[in-house]
Amino acid sequence: MRVQQGLGVVHLFCKPRVWVDRDAVIAAVRAAESKDCQVVTAAMLGHKADSAFMALCADMTVIREFQTALQRAGLDVVDSYVSITEVNEYAKGMPEHMLAERLYPKLPPEGMDSFCFYPMSKRREAHANWYVTPFEERREMMMEHGASGRTFAGRVVQLITGATGLDDMEWGVSLFAIDADTIKEVVHTMRFDRGSALYGEFGRFYVGTITPVDSLV
Amino acid sequence: MRVQQGLGVVHLFCKPRVWVDRDAVIAAVRAAESKDCQVVTAAMLGHKADSAFMALCADMTVIREFQTALQRAGLDVVDSYVSITEVNEYAKGMPEHMLAERLYPKLPPEGMDSFCFYPMSKRREAHANWYVTPFEERREMMMEHGASGRTFAGRVVQLITGATGLDDMEWGVSLFAIDADTIKEVVHTMRFDRGSALYGEFGRFYVGTITPVDSLV
Amino acid sequence: MRVQQGLGVVHLFCKPRVWVDRDAVIAAVRAAESKDCQVVTAAMLGHKADSAFMALCADMTVIREFQTALQRAGLDVVDSYVSITEVNEYAKGMPEHMLAERLYPKLPPEGMDSFCFYPMSKRREAHANWYVTPFEERREMMMEHGASGRTFAGRVVQLITGATGLDDMEWGVSLFAIDADTIKEVVHTMRFDRGSALYGEFGRFYVGTITPVDSLV
Amino acid sequence: MRVQQGLGVVHLFCKPRVWVDRDAVIAAVRAAESKDCQVVTAAMLGHKADSAFMALCADMTVIREFQTALQRAGLDVVDSYVSITEVNEYAKGMPEHMLAERLYPKLPPEGMDSFCFYPMSKRREAHANWYVTPFEERREMMMEHGASGRTFAGRVVQLITGATGLDDMEWGVSLFAIDADTIKEVVHTMRFDRGSALYGEFGRFYVGTITPVDSLV
Amino acid sequence: MRVQQGLGVVHLFCKPRVWVDRDAVIAAVRAAESKDCQVVTAAMLGHKADSAFMALCADMTVIREFQTALQRAGLDVVDSYVSITEVNEYAKGMPEHMLAERLYPKLPPEGMDSFCFYPMSKRREAHANWYVTPFEERREMMMEHGASGRTFAGRVVQLITGATGLDDMEWGVSLFAIDADTIKEVVHTMRFDRGSALYGEFGRFYVGTITPVDSLV
Repeated sequence: MRVQQGLGVVHLFCKPRVWVDRDAVIAAVRAAESKDCQVVTAAMLGHKADSAFMALCADMTVIREFQTALQRAGLDVVDSYVSITEVNEYAKGMPEHMLAERLYPKLPPEGMDSFCFYPMSKRREAHANWYVTPFEERREMMMEHGASGRTFAGRVVQLITGATGLDDMEWGVSLFAIDADTIKEVVHTMRFDRGSALYGEFGRFYVGTITPVDSLV
Repeated sequence: MRVQQGLGVVHLFCKPRVWVDRDAVIAAVRAAESKDCQVVTAAMLGHKADSAFMALCADMTVIREFQTALQRAGLDVVDSYVSITEVNEYAKGMPEHMLAERLYPKLPPEGMDSFCFYPMSKRREAHANWYVTPFEERREMMMEHGASGRTFAGRVVQLITGATGLDDMEWGVSLFAIDADTIKEVVHTMRFDRGSALYGEFGRFYVGTITPVDSLV
Repeated sequence: MRVQQGLGVVHLFCKPRVWVDRDAVIAAVRAAESKDCQVVTAAMLGHKADSAFMALCADMTVIREFQTALQRAGLDVVDSYVSITEVNEYAKGMPEHMLAERLYPKLPPEGMDSFCFYPMSKRREAHANWYVTPFEERREMMMEHGASGRTFAGRVVQLITGATGLDDMEWGVSLFAIDADTIKEVVHTMRFDRGSALYGEFGRFYVGTITPVDSLV
Repeated sequence: MRVQQGLGVVHLFCKPRVWVDRDAVIAAVRAAESKDCQVVTAAMLGHKADSAFMALCADMTVIREFQTALQRAGLDVVDSYVSITEVNEYAKGMPEHMLAERLYPKLPPEGMDSFCFYPMSKRREAHANWYVTPFEERREMMMEHGASGRTFAGRVVQLITGATGLDDMEWGVSLFAIDADTIKEVVHTMRFDRGSALYGEFGRFYVGTITPVDSLV
Repeated sequence: MRVQQGLGVVHLFCKPRVWVDRDAVIAAVRAAESKDCQVVTAAMLGHKADSAFMALCADMTVIREFQTALQRAGLDVVDSYVSITEVNEYAKGMPEHMLAERLYPKLPPEGMDSFCFYPMSKRREAHANWYVTPFEERREMMMEHGASGRTFAGRVVQLITGATGLDDMEWGVSLFAIDADTIKEVVHTMRFDRGSALYGEFGRFYVGTITPVDSLV
């Protein structure tokens, strides 16, 4: 399974089984990287997962091989998110280099070791149904949301990937920030944006520290 | 338990137990095929399942035997969907060959190795209750939805099977597409159709690559 | 714990543990039958359970013994439903033999090997609260529902047992039908009845084939 | 952790692990009883639990020791409810002996071997928010509910314990009845009371037979 | 990952695996304390967890090391909550020492061995959406809530930490009280405050006794 425009992105949240082959985990990351994959690795906090591997690759079969290699190395994949990078319908007409940044991001950004991931959907409720809201109104809300996010430039890098048809919730949000306070501040602030306050549905939140794979296991 | 009109369809989502007998898995598929079953096999992405087996057969007892054979070969069935092929009440009067395609599909379609499955129901909420909506209105929404889907002809093949009384959600959607982008595009686009935007309730999404059983295990 | 009027009914949905003592399972069924229990056994489809045992008995202590015997034989009870047969308040005044059929059913019916079970409750929402709806209105809906069900006579036998105070959802529906299509048709058709469309809340659906215990394990 | 007025109450729902030390379970109950705890034991029906231990004690540290002893004896505590006995704000001014019965109950009542437990909360929805309903209105609903319950006097004994701040749902209801029919009848009947029909939110229902600990394991 | 203003706070709820290395658990707590962490330990009641470790530290990498040490000592982290101490937007302008108490609390308070934790969020429903409520109205509700809480001064110490972007629910509430009655009384009383009654969404409740780590394992 290939992605024609952009990259396939799989977030794998893992816990160790009884025995983990440390070298095999490292080798799995190196093998994926050698096949045009980017792999971001993080040490996670709390009971949901101990480690996270975010793999980006145009060929999702390579990501499946990567997942198999991690599992064989003794990691249990306890949660995940399957999505692809995207330029959404509200961003058409952006300068080429900005589109490229969204479709083909280089991760992780330097100097930002605080990592956060959560999935989200747009509500389809009686009083707030995104999918029956006119395009212009949706576009305005997206622009307000974007402007609100840009006030955090330099302190946070955000990547939103699309998962409609690929995973349970419609979008995945990956945040890289300079510290934990900033993650909290940006998500709290943006929750007051009309698009989030009324239409946002949020899933589980994962948080941890970007960590090179050889320090991770 | 037999299906009189159409085929029984069981989607089995699996993870390996400690030890899997590769030959026994292949033999299970071959045995089912020798008893008039079609079996579609796929390598899945993410934590929900590692492999998927979609079996279609008029005799559901044969499917149960197939499930038992997979379990004995060391696969743990971690999720599933039980349904039957159908011609729904909105499609009555279709040309015979189109009805036959729905009741007796030949799967997987050629050249489409991206596979997606999700279950769905129609809402019964205060403001959007499919089951108290007049037939004509429902039929119109189904026709809009069908027309919207047909714009993807050649890039996606879709099979909708009915599960009311057989599984928790009312319909199962199996998609075969030429790439991952198309799965995302078709499901995102159709979510704006009135029937989906207002009445659709979606379950878990599974995605993977169609893979012959001998490359799968 | 005894049931004074009618029978206690426990549906046990099971998966095998590592090792199952086939003879002990059969002996458990025979022992329960020798103590005035009826036991219906079925091979189930999908991941939720591999086998189902529906035990009917006025003395629920005998059913508990039966459950213990199955567990000791190596079956893991992964889901269940505890209820008792009932004549509800809308059926008062029915001819004696019809009441007896509901309170003391003889199961399984002959020639109907397709088996389905699901629990349900009546909604208590703002716009549809069964428990503040006047008795007459409720009775009318129940009669419409009954009439709708009777059009399937000869193809389906249905037993509704009450579980308020005994299990999470308020009623259990056990269906026996001549084939899988009929289960789907009857449940789909009746979902349009006012009582179901507006007030029905449905739990998990189990489906399988009635199978004598010695072919089951 | 102590309870100053009334008793701490912990319901422990258990399944056996691979090996249970029968004598140690009995000793755990006896030890708790010797430290001013009451312990009610029951054999439960269905998959949720095989046995239940309801411990009442002013010193909750003793209950924690009891829990540890059961776990060390080989029981897995799979569900639980932590609460304390209470005289609620609607019952102020009751005769002293009735208050004492609620704060310091003697359990189990004689001749009532059918046991039921479920947790419940009061709704905080748009159309039915208990916590913004005036006190007088709430008091009236509680009195109607109490009167409705009293028609079952002699057939059922009910204990309602409070858990706001201590467990997920706000109250725990423990019922002791002469037979299973009565449990079903009382809960079904009271569900039509305004306070339950509009404001009640119900959790999982547990049902079983009061059984002395030496017959239980 | 560091917290710039305030402390990172991770609540770890644990169950023992087959074998726990008591000395290693104690050593893990001591090691964290030696690296500027506060660690509060408690024996919990019920099935959700047997022990709780609440770690406060500006450097969340130290907390991750602490978590790893507990896991290696044989504890299974079955639930958790990741947050940071905060001075919220309604408390701006408070005297310096009160802000410091919130950002850099000293825990546990003396003489309060009853411990409670629960997460909560503010609703975003049609009739009660915190995030579209004007700031002044929100501030008033927060002040009413604060005043209501202060009537329990001397009997309860409360710490509210923020988790938007860090965990699934938006705030964590940690309560320390003189007895179990007080926990119940304060949470029940405050549920009638407008901010809680209309806008509060509550998660799972954990309750136990503050216990030094060497008595805990």
